[in-house]
Amino acid sequence: MIGRASDLARFKRCIDDATGRNAVIAIAQAGAAYVEDARGGCGHAAAFVAPRSTEEVSLVLRTAAECGIRLIPQGANTGLVAAGVPEDATADVVLSLRAMNRRPSIDVANRSACVEAGVRLSTLNSVAADAGLCFPIDLAADPSVGGLIAANAAGAKFLRYGDVRRNLLGLEVVLADGHGTVLDFMKPLWKNNTGIDLKQLFVGSSGSLGVITRAVLALHPLPTVTVAALLVPADHDAVVDALVALERCAGDALTAFEGMSGVAMQAAVDLVSSVRNPFESGDVPEFAVLVELSGGPGESETRLTELLAQALATLESHGRTRIADVLLGDPARLWALRHAIPDALRRRGRVIGCDVSVSRGQLAALRTRLIEAVRVTWPEVEICDFGHVGDGGLHFNLVWPRSAREPATGTFDAIRTQVFEIVVKEFGGAFSAEHGVGPRNAAYYRRFTGSTALRLSASIQRALAPARIGRVDFGG
Amino acid sequence: MIGRASDLARFKRCIDDATGRNAVIAIAQAGAAYVEDARGGCGHAAAFVAPRSTEEVSLVLRTAAECGIRLIPQGANTGLVAAGVPEDATADVVLSLRAMNRRPSIDVANRSACVEAGVRLSTLNSVAADAGLCFPIDLAADPSVGGLIAANAAGAKFLRYGDVRRNLLGLEVVLADGHGTVLDFMKPLWKNNTGIDLKQLFVGSSGSLGVITRAVLALHPLPTVTVAALLVPADHDAVVDALVALERCAGDALTAFEGMSGVAMQAAVDLVSSVRNPFESGDVPEFAVLVELSGGPGESETRLTELLAQALATLESHGRTRIADVLLGDPARLWALRHAIPDALRRRGRVIGCDVSVSRGQLAALRTRLIEAVRVTWPEVEICDFGHVGDGGLHFNLVWPRSAREPATGTFDAIRTQVFEIVVKEFGGAFSAEHGVGPRNAAYYRRFTGSTALRLSASIQRALAPARIGRVDFGG
Repeated sequence: MIGRASDLARFKRCIDDATGRNAVIAIAQAGAAYVEDARGGCGHAAAFVAPRSTEEVSLVLRTAAECGIRLIPQGANTGLVAAGVPEDATADVVLSLRAMNRRPSIDVANRSACVEAGVRLSTLNSVAADAGLCFPIDLAADPSVGGLIAANAAGAKFLRYGDVRRNLLGLEVVLADGHGTVLDFMKPLWKNNTGIDLKQLFVGSSGSLGVITRAVLALHPLPTVTVAALLVPADHDAVVDALVALERCAGDALTAFEGMSGVAMQAAVDLVSSVRNPFESGDVPEFAVLVELSGGPGESETRLTELLAQALATLESHGRTRIADVLLGDPARLWALRHAIPDALRRRGRVIGCDVSVSRGQLAALRTRLIEAVRVTWPEVEICDFGHVGDGGLHFNLVWPRSAREPATGTFDAIRTQVFEIVVKEFGGAFSAEHGVGPRNAAYYRRFTGSTALRLSASIQRALAPARIGRVDFGG
Repeated sequence: MIGRASDLARFKRCIDDATGRNAVIAIAQAGAAYVEDARGGCGHAAAFVAPRSTEEVSLVLRTAAECGIRLIPQGANTGLVAAGVPEDATADVVLSLRAMNRRPSIDVANRSACVEAGVRLSTLNSVAADAGLCFPIDLAADPSVGGLIAANAAGAKFLRYGDVRRNLLGLEVVLADGHGTVLDFMKPLWKNNTGIDLKQLFVGSSGSLGVITRAVLALHPLPTVTVAALLVPADHDAVVDALVALERCAGDALTAFEGMSGVAMQAAVDLVSSVRNPFESGDVPEFAVLVELSGGPGESETRLTELLAQALATLESHGRTRIADVLLGDPARLWALRHAIPDALRRRGRVIGCDVSVSRGQLAALRTRLIEAVRVTWPEVEICDFGHVGDGGLHFNLVWPRSAREPATGTFDAIRTQVFEIVVKEFGGAFSAEHGVGPRNAAYYRRFTGSTALRLSASIQRALAPARIGRVDFGG
């Protein structure tokens, strides 16, 4: 412990001297928010540092390597797998990117933004909106740009715009190689094939291959016309059939196709005061899909509504009713219902989140199988799933109700294991669709990653980050 | 030489025994096409093998490592940087994927295709079209799927559909690790964030990190309505202004925005018999843009034409004429003009290809600077550039006319060096936008890649391919 305390003191002295300010502070002084886990619970750290420039990040990494300090890079600390949550009260130092948040610069002709890692998604979008553009990653949280990249975030508009990887043109990273080497891949190029694309490695790297300091992101024209509707399917298969019909008919005017279970919608209606029940009868159906179509100045609400009707008509033409109900509604109100679900579930009890994905045609079968399996093994649990039908993503989220008995230790892990085994082994799916890998799902990473992939990932981590950083060991 | 001959004999014996057929044949017996370079010239090899399955590819890699044979993976041999062209007549063996070409299987609900590496782009698209889908990489050549991935091909519809990387869901690779280890990342998932995404490393790997054997590719609805036009800009800046206006107004209905110099168009009109001059006056303008808008069954030609007019009207409203002429035309005929350019240039003389990219707003300035520089230094050369304004790509292709003096040795390299120096150093662009890295531009790879990137790329190559394969040394 004395060794660690003196290492930490040396680390602080070096950084403070070099920056000319009280840069390294005790974690208690920084605030509790920097050790909190967005999924509940709390971590521990010894200290906190928030460098103001790439050069300072490099200094911090160099000094940490010299002093044997483990740095935990952290953006807005909104991640859901605890990759940015420190654990060691004596040796971990939170490396916050919050001070690297200069106003993003927008290149209108190139449709791109040059952004520092600590800039929030909402800030980027507010600046981009002034130029009629947007960075179309649509999430309930408001992460920083560095965190978005380290998690390869995606969200509710993947169907139309893709994930962060798809929208990343350039990247600057400081390596945890003992020297704080800066990798500059900041060219704002849409096409660039000049060797192994090293920046791809840092997308979804959970802060454990280096520190992302800046990026060039692709922007898109801000939609000016939006139409949204809730579809109530008459049968499970109708959901994917409607998706396929809409893609063919509406093309990229289709910007979201989100599934919601009745239980999840009911929770949002009951527990989040700003949400009103959109269903006229007052009864929430077993399942519904939030469809959004949007476009620019060349688009009209009338045409988007017609496209929706036209696509659904091709389904009905098979002779039987496939979509029992279509409710056109105010997009903001329908999205409020969708986005209220995570919060509503937290109010209902303890949430067991399972962020899985499968090929789109398998979604209905996977859902049926999971619901059956969980009902048998864990009758107390409420199944409140929702997610992204358009990209095969399913938040198979479960709630352990406040009214139920206290779960035995390990119950939640056992539930998740049961779910992931079915997803991965029976359906060839993924145990993490869009939240990435961190301490919260490290055991599943080890369990479901092949031995060659583990070995290669370990050797890449050794090559890029021999001084170690962050909380993930990609060797398992 | 005797050592090599006996190594080769042992290699042949092992493979032939294990496969039960005459699998390894002399290169002369296989045919001249397998040593040809698509840009002209010819390579050399000792032998040829075309495995029929992933297991056979693994056997070939294992045996090659044992016998000290260098394998050169090759798809349809249409690459433009010679990455698949063998060079050593005594030791190189062409590993052709041509026999791995089973009919692709299409998953309509998931909008994806499972494809073997040897399947041609045209075959994939023909099978996908039966399901109303397409793989929208639009090229003049007809490469194999493995080659498309190893080059991260992109082409003329990048603006709307992106490159191969953006459309790659799954990948199977056999490693050159001495064991022929098979990496199976074939899950057909749109969202999958379960660790370092190793498959990204093989995209643009030029066949030098392993052998791509299968892939899962994203498909898109086949457009059913297309409108195309030639725009003649009144000034250079009008080109990018028109692009931005069209993106805002038409969104993803805009599927291509291709620039063509007058010299390139004139060559196509003069030298390719199937191409007719689309300009009514008969005079080819200094520069024109081929614009394409397209959509599905919910779209109409009338609306697409209106979108084009509406977008161009926003430009004109600034008070002066920005677009001097708009010629609506048969899309097939206009594309024929665009796609005839490479062939026309080859008929005109020896082509010096420079596949560069820059941020879109810099394209006009780069073009002006390059034209000036080349005209001064190499007055004999004809500047016949064309390319992808929509993604900042410029094929700054030059022709050494048949009528000019024979160029001194090293002239073409000197010209390319001059062009690339301006692109990279003055404009922050890339020396290879979409053709990738191979022997043809290895010197520029070394010249323009930073020392840390070279070192990290070398360590990744050592980790994935310790037994070496292909023609590119990523360590420079």
